[in-house]
Amino acid sequence: MNLSPLQKARYEYAPKLPGMLRNGISEICVKEGNETQSVADQDKIKALFPNTYGKKEITFEKGQNTSTAKKHVVGVILSGGQAPGGHNVITGLYDALKATNKENVLYGFKGGPDGLLKNDYVTFDDAFIDAYRNTGGFDIIGSGRTKLETKEQFAIVAENAKKNGLTAIVIIGGDDSNTNAATLAEYMAANNTGIQVIGCPKTIDGDLKNEDIEASFGFDTATKTYSEVIGNIERDANSAKKYWHFVKVMGRSASHVALECALETQPNICLIGEEVKAKKMSLSQIASQIADSVEKRAESAGNFGVAIIPEGIVEFVPEFSVLIAEINELLAGKKTEEFNALPNWAAKYEFIKAGLTAESFAVFALLPEFVQQQLFLERDPHGNVQVSLIESEKLFSALVKDELDKRKAAGTYKGKFAALHHFFGYEGRCAFPSNFDADYCYSLGYNAFMLIQYGYTGYLSKVSNLAKPAEEWVAGGMPITKMMNMERRNGEDKPVIRKALVELDGAPFKYFEAHRDAWAVETAFTYPGAIQYYGPSSVCDITTKTLALEKGLLK
Amino acid sequence: MNLSPLQKARYEYAPKLPGMLRNGISEICVKEGNETQSVADQDKIKALFPNTYGKKEITFEKGQNTSTAKKHVVGVILSGGQAPGGHNVITGLYDALKATNKENVLYGFKGGPDGLLKNDYVTFDDAFIDAYRNTGGFDIIGSGRTKLETKEQFAIVAENAKKNGLTAIVIIGGDDSNTNAATLAEYMAANNTGIQVIGCPKTIDGDLKNEDIEASFGFDTATKTYSEVIGNIERDANSAKKYWHFVKVMGRSASHVALECALETQPNICLIGEEVKAKKMSLSQIASQIADSVEKRAESAGNFGVAIIPEGIVEFVPEFSVLIAEINELLAGKKTEEFNALPNWAAKYEFIKAGLTAESFAVFALLPEFVQQQLFLERDPHGNVQVSLIESEKLFSALVKDELDKRKAAGTYKGKFAALHHFFGYEGRCAFPSNFDADYCYSLGYNAFMLIQYGYTGYLSKVSNLAKPAEEWVAGGMPITKMMNMERRNGEDKPVIRKALVELDGAPFKYFEAHRDAWAVETAFTYPGAIQYYGPSSVCDITTKTLALEKGLLK
Repeated sequence: MNLSPLQKARYEYAPKLPGMLRNGISEICVKEGNETQSVADQDKIKALFPNTYGKKEITFEKGQNTSTAKKHVVGVILSGGQAPGGHNVITGLYDALKATNKENVLYGFKGGPDGLLKNDYVTFDDAFIDAYRNTGGFDIIGSGRTKLETKEQFAIVAENAKKNGLTAIVIIGGDDSNTNAATLAEYMAANNTGIQVIGCPKTIDGDLKNEDIEASFGFDTATKTYSEVIGNIERDANSAKKYWHFVKVMGRSASHVALECALETQPNICLIGEEVKAKKMSLSQIASQIADSVEKRAESAGNFGVAIIPEGIVEFVPEFSVLIAEINELLAGKKTEEFNALPNWAAKYEFIKAGLTAESFAVFALLPEFVQQQLFLERDPHGNVQVSLIESEKLFSALVKDELDKRKAAGTYKGKFAALHHFFGYEGRCAFPSNFDADYCYSLGYNAFMLIQYGYTGYLSKVSNLAKPAEEWVAGGMPITKMMNMERRNGEDKPVIRKALVELDGAPFKYFEAHRDAWAVETAFTYPGAIQYYGPSSVCDITTKTLALEKGLLK
Repeated sequence: MNLSPLQKARYEYAPKLPGMLRNGISEICVKEGNETQSVADQDKIKALFPNTYGKKEITFEKGQNTSTAKKHVVGVILSGGQAPGGHNVITGLYDALKATNKENVLYGFKGGPDGLLKNDYVTFDDAFIDAYRNTGGFDIIGSGRTKLETKEQFAIVAENAKKNGLTAIVIIGGDDSNTNAATLAEYMAANNTGIQVIGCPKTIDGDLKNEDIEASFGFDTATKTYSEVIGNIERDANSAKKYWHFVKVMGRSASHVALECALETQPNICLIGEEVKAKKMSLSQIASQIADSVEKRAESAGNFGVAIIPEGIVEFVPEFSVLIAEINELLAGKKTEEFNALPNWAAKYEFIKAGLTAESFAVFALLPEFVQQQLFLERDPHGNVQVSLIESEKLFSALVKDELDKRKAAGTYKGKFAALHHFFGYEGRCAFPSNFDADYCYSLGYNAFMLIQYGYTGYLSKVSNLAKPAEEWVAGGMPITKMMNMERRNGEDKPVIRKALVELDGAPFKYFEAHRDAWAVETAFTYPGAIQYYGPSSVCDITTKTLALEKGLLK
């Protein structure tokens, strides 16, 4: 193996635990809090989780360990997309498990939930674990996107778990995976398997967040990585003074990532999907808003700037969603063949014009040709438009160019507009976790084992007070059912953890809103630079501006 | 201004000077070496530079300063593309100038050579300079791409310089800019202006390098930034195990950047333009080589991998260059109108088929349609194909896909191939300079003033022994004419600094060549992580593998 100097150095890093977990396993006791209720739909959730509903919130404290001694065999999986720190959840879990009893065993099930279904696992030992301490990626055991949600799947998991003598399963995943963890916990309890299930909150998207979970892990490192390169691009724009950079960042359903990057880098423009939806903004309105910034800056700062575009933005534009629905309808069934048989784009264009409502055709006509063609030519196996393929950064720069051309013709705009495009996503999911994520994840894993040791199931490993130094963090557990409500999914009412979107009356958005008009015109760029793992604590230990604002630590 | 924590911390960083420059200005003396000769075409270069040719190489030593006391008024420009560390050349220059005599003055001419022509400048003082210490970007005074090369321009520069009382001009730039610095120095000497000219070697491309210049500044930071994100993508690929990532990196004329990134990250594939040209490789050969890696990995590691593609690669493929030349010919003059008048792509395709030689049409037919169309539809103001617009990362992934489809049909390949694309360039040009670049640049600037103080002109600020700790670096100066030879440029023989391409018998390429067959099949990824400015010296002070290999420090 060829290890980089940083990887070698990071092996030596000792993640910081919450103060209350620093005294050794024998000095950790439980303080029980109140019984919990789900955030909504209490009766329905209670009925669905008779064995795991309403349990008490707990925190750990310094004090004599009162758990019952028992040999534990734990299985862990990584579920869904990569997030920096996943390896540290596993190393923290391993360290607590082995510190409690050398005979305890940790299995890593490979490739996500599939590993549990196929009983495909590895047995961790010190050498194995040590090779992954404080590193990025999910390559330690891989991950997968299979959803664990049916009774049949649960039965297989239970059978494999019994075969291996498992006493507990830890699921490291996002909102869906933790919802599934709760359901699996209920199944295990209802069937008296004795197998506990604990969840850990992961996602770079930042949309697994609520009054109990201050932050999902990975969000800090991913947004710092994107902010690094966005800041570098800002500095380049401000040096060359000749390009507008349109930067798309990952995040399909929520704009937390874009917002955090904007708070860190202060670009001229940042679109927020939730705002676009709430204000029912049209493509023209958005393009016009960006063009206003370009025009004003052309007169003062110069013909350059930076705009951040969240990956999922077009799905938040109401008129665009209507257009997509109409296109899917227009090409349903045999109509695809008819469409495909048309000899050229001009003929296809007429077909489209005839088939769409006037409103939707007006939206369609506004789009640059490469997007028009993409909407019709590249479709998924069900014949539906692949919205995720739309290069929204190029779409908006094209719409802005059209708008500026009009303004130029009208004599109001006299600048030059040249755009460059970027997409940042994969770059941030597997970075070496920041000190914050390394500490937070290690604590989540360590804490998950404490929950197991004390016999809890259906709990989420909870570490809070995260905007403060790790010493002051609070470790404990929260019944996952507390975070659940009923939502309509695929035509059925399902108990799920509510996805956290950007709140337009929340402090992070309010801060952005208060400053963005100035940022749109001035060059107020901030250059965060690369993630630092060493050096002054102000540089290497601080988490996101989103959390600082939410906690009132930044005004 | 909104300063990031890292920017504040970097203000406090004290760049490391070469040992011999650490004793204070009064303790720096000159040691003259031998008279120099240009690397080739000595008679011609000598005739063109009668006043500045053949001067002695010099190094600085600890000893009594023997320079003649004189008030200095120095003008500095940044020329060409941004490179991390440019600000530090200026801060080093400023510090040496002020340490010598508080009355000395440093002007920064704005927007590159244009600033000298338009006499547009700022006067630096402590507060101004302090805001840019150890930061990325060229935003301190901007840069520009105007070439200073005509007698008329030189006369204007001389007049403006006299008006401002300049005693010296420092040009921070790449090979062309330093060639121009030499010509300007000769002009100033020939006309007895008394104005000295000193050059500093800048470019992230790494192609300003020779027996005197071990490295151009910015190459270290830029390649570390690209290697960070490439490494992150590798880790993501190795975690998800379902994508091949095609990563294009900046560098149009030389492949040093791609090669250094490959040495740092050990991807499965890295193309080197110089090799493609030397071996006269065809597009099919290249695609086939990549497909071999995909096929072999599908059987062992899995359906994922990473390939690095240098930005300028297609221009190195002989058959592609011929095709481009034929297309430019085919559409010369009025033929463009004829072509544009054709009703659709099918008709245009027939026109192309009829107009190209059979060999070139075969190459054309191989290209994916989006590249075919790009070649014909997007042309520069002279009607020529815009080769730089070709998305070579997408071109090669498409060619590889075609090749794999054939192999699948033939039954030899059974894997899945899904490609993702990235381009990294702007991200790296304005990063906070690494400690190496911060130290090197500060030393270049400090040293440039020592050359000025001792009355040298037509010299390049030279700092060498760079693979060793800064304490052991050697500071001095080299007549720029020593690096020059005659080359054909735009139909004329011109004296220029030879551009350094990747040498196929050089140690960096040899190392790559010795390992790449293994890397193509195995997952030997190395994850460098983000640039560190603090922490263990092994993590934060080491420069490139390219230099280590060139100096024999790595085998």
